[in-house]
Amino acid sequence: MPSASIVTIGNELLNGHTADTNAAFICQKLLSIGIPVVSVYTVGDDISLIVRALKRAARDADIVIATGGLGPTDDDLTRQAFAKLMGVKLILDESILAKIKSYFEKRNIRMPEKNAIQAHIPKGAQAIDNTVGTAPGIYENIKKKQFFAMPGVPFEMERMLVDFVFPKLQKRKGGKFTIIKKVRCFGEGESAIAEKLGDLMNRHRNPLINCTVGGGAITLHIVASAKTKILAEKMAQKDNAIITSLLGDLIFGFDEQTLPEVVGRQLAKQKKTIATAESCTGGLVAKLITDTPGASDYFTQGWVTYSNKSKTQLLQIPPQLIEKYGAVSEQVAASMAKNARKKANSNFAVAITGIAGPAGGTEQKPVGLVFISICSDKNCLTKQFYFSQTRDIIRHRAAFTAMNMLRLMLKD
Amino acid sequence: MPSASIVTIGNELLNGHTADTNAAFICQKLLSIGIPVVSVYTVGDDISLIVRALKRAARDADIVIATGGLGPTDDDLTRQAFAKLMGVKLILDESILAKIKSYFEKRNIRMPEKNAIQAHIPKGAQAIDNTVGTAPGIYENIKKKQFFAMPGVPFEMERMLVDFVFPKLQKRKGGKFTIIKKVRCFGEGESAIAEKLGDLMNRHRNPLINCTVGGGAITLHIVASAKTKILAEKMAQKDNAIITSLLGDLIFGFDEQTLPEVVGRQLAKQKKTIATAESCTGGLVAKLITDTPGASDYFTQGWVTYSNKSKTQLLQIPPQLIEKYGAVSEQVAASMAKNARKKANSNFAVAITGIAGPAGGTEQKPVGLVFISICSDKNCLTKQFYFSQTRDIIRHRAAFTAMNMLRLMLKD
Repeated sequence: MPSASIVTIGNELLNGHTADTNAAFICQKLLSIGIPVVSVYTVGDDISLIVRALKRAARDADIVIATGGLGPTDDDLTRQAFAKLMGVKLILDESILAKIKSYFEKRNIRMPEKNAIQAHIPKGAQAIDNTVGTAPGIYENIKKKQFFAMPGVPFEMERMLVDFVFPKLQKRKGGKFTIIKKVRCFGEGESAIAEKLGDLMNRHRNPLINCTVGGGAITLHIVASAKTKILAEKMAQKDNAIITSLLGDLIFGFDEQTLPEVVGRQLAKQKKTIATAESCTGGLVAKLITDTPGASDYFTQGWVTYSNKSKTQLLQIPPQLIEKYGAVSEQVAASMAKNARKKANSNFAVAITGIAGPAGGTEQKPVGLVFISICSDKNCLTKQFYFSQTRDIIRHRAAFTAMNMLRLMLKD
Repeated sequence: MPSASIVTIGNELLNGHTADTNAAFICQKLLSIGIPVVSVYTVGDDISLIVRALKRAARDADIVIATGGLGPTDDDLTRQAFAKLMGVKLILDESILAKIKSYFEKRNIRMPEKNAIQAHIPKGAQAIDNTVGTAPGIYENIKKKQFFAMPGVPFEMERMLVDFVFPKLQKRKGGKFTIIKKVRCFGEGESAIAEKLGDLMNRHRNPLINCTVGGGAITLHIVASAKTKILAEKMAQKDNAIITSLLGDLIFGFDEQTLPEVVGRQLAKQKKTIATAESCTGGLVAKLITDTPGASDYFTQGWVTYSNKSKTQLLQIPPQLIEKYGAVSEQVAASMAKNARKKANSNFAVAITGIAGPAGGTEQKPVGLVFISICSDKNCLTKQFYFSQTRDIIRHRAAFTAMNMLRLMLKD
């Protein structure tokens, strides 16, 4: 079975200025075509360190995929490192230069002179066309190992991976196929979910089940390996069904589905609409809902009523109510949702009011206290939560929790 | 000069399920105290691979920092790998167990049995207190090399790094100090900025100047190294001043400042307020403004008028105007900003209408066409943009471009 090793290149990756998202993307894509990534190396913009990492990677695996260091500035040295690895010189490729020039012409921008360096590739190597940017990639076979260099800009790298690298790799005789299915949960912690799954999460099981936290979900990854794609698919589907029966309502979706997308799809299916009234989340719920293309089918409007006065002016929350219970209260949350729904003439409205911090908390109402209310034409459900950690995390938890409350409401 | 190597552990990092943000964070923090990171290794949850990576890292550097694999589930094997590296057994630490139990008790949750494994550490190693989660870290000196293991959860890792790892490392005799200053720009591309900077970006210069793109900014990193912190600071400040004079208005801020934060600070300083009226960005501008604590000083309210009808109902945009020019037009954008400002009784209002895609584009109005309008009590500035790439990128570019227009307006 062929395997791959990744080398990500750039001082900014070691200076901590940029998190390396390319490695994760490539790992996932390669695994989906049955090629596991066995190691990832990160090195700075230094020719000899890049060469060393490429050599190490080639010892680990049959395929070496490098990203970064193909930009136009002087700290971009991957071209030079590839030339050194191959023992050849960089040469100017006139056809690439013409392409780069036309890229800028199309955009009515003068080509900065620096970009000309991007038309140089190691003698004998193959340039990989960059259809969405200026930096071409590099492809070379050295001693039966396949080497690819791609730009570090995620959008350009992703396109090049799919358009060029994949077809090259799929020609290799593969061994095992790996299928990954994801089960996405919300509403319980990682260990509570692991406990419900019991032996399913054992280390040496196939399918292997991993658990990760982030992006508004706890995600279970079912990694099934088998000799054929069909068999791996069957194994993954079987586990998928078992997990679904064990976790029930905790599961909101599968694979790449997000909570807002699932809720949106459900709203569209039921031909229902939703409006938003946000205080502490400041527009985040509306933003999450409209992340999904086609959200206009179920979302028409939202209010960000950040000040007390705006709650009264835009949503007619009585000032006396705010004075009596405080802007962060069950009563105000419910009133916001109720009035937003009426004004928007929607089937549902979700309202959030809370203290996102870091300042503004009191003994009675600490940072992290959030009230979420969801009203339909029949009833209102209002709940109190204490979220912890940072302002950003509190706001995101509040927004995703609201989405999850709506999801469960739509089930009934 | 002591240096460090990082080992990030977890199948999810090689399966592509999670991008590794911890490595970047640790790199940046260590460099700020004069300790460069020379390599990063990523390995799966496998005891022998973890041990091999730890050994390699210890060959590269004096300090080895591992993250991940300390969770309560069966795929968490970093504890076992450390024990193997040290040649000792794992033993139960009753005081850690008591702490974990109390962590759950405080939250009125029954401790899942699986969490008990987290109270085990290699015999002879020091447990690192986790003040915000259940997994303790591990600290050990092996043959003059310092080894640290921390949880993979970013929030827990960050706290542990600052509270425990830093004080330990600062006791080491340091060599060179590195100071990093960041200059944050918006309004031109990477190579245009590099061209303006010329020789400043040469590879072997000290300070070294790197350029990265992302998060609504082009960021120049000035990395200055010197024997003393004061000298490094001076060198960085000198370059900072040169870059500032070369780039002028393209610069919106420094170091960790974000564009919305800078704009917010300027609004607060001038005692001005802003309201938002969003269509295609669906609340993102309001969300970005309220990301900054204290935004209530200058932001009181916003509208997400996603449908045509809601533009008329909430912001009194004449239906004839929408019919004549289309919802995505200069006229509607300007009218949204004008009316939002009046209704909010604010000094400024920003309005955005556009086609975020992927569907909904036409020959005349393609995906990526966005109109942004900013009105004050004196005048309105409305501009047309063509943004490219994905829905998410188009929405973010639109929102940040609006923030940048407001920034430049506030300068006058």
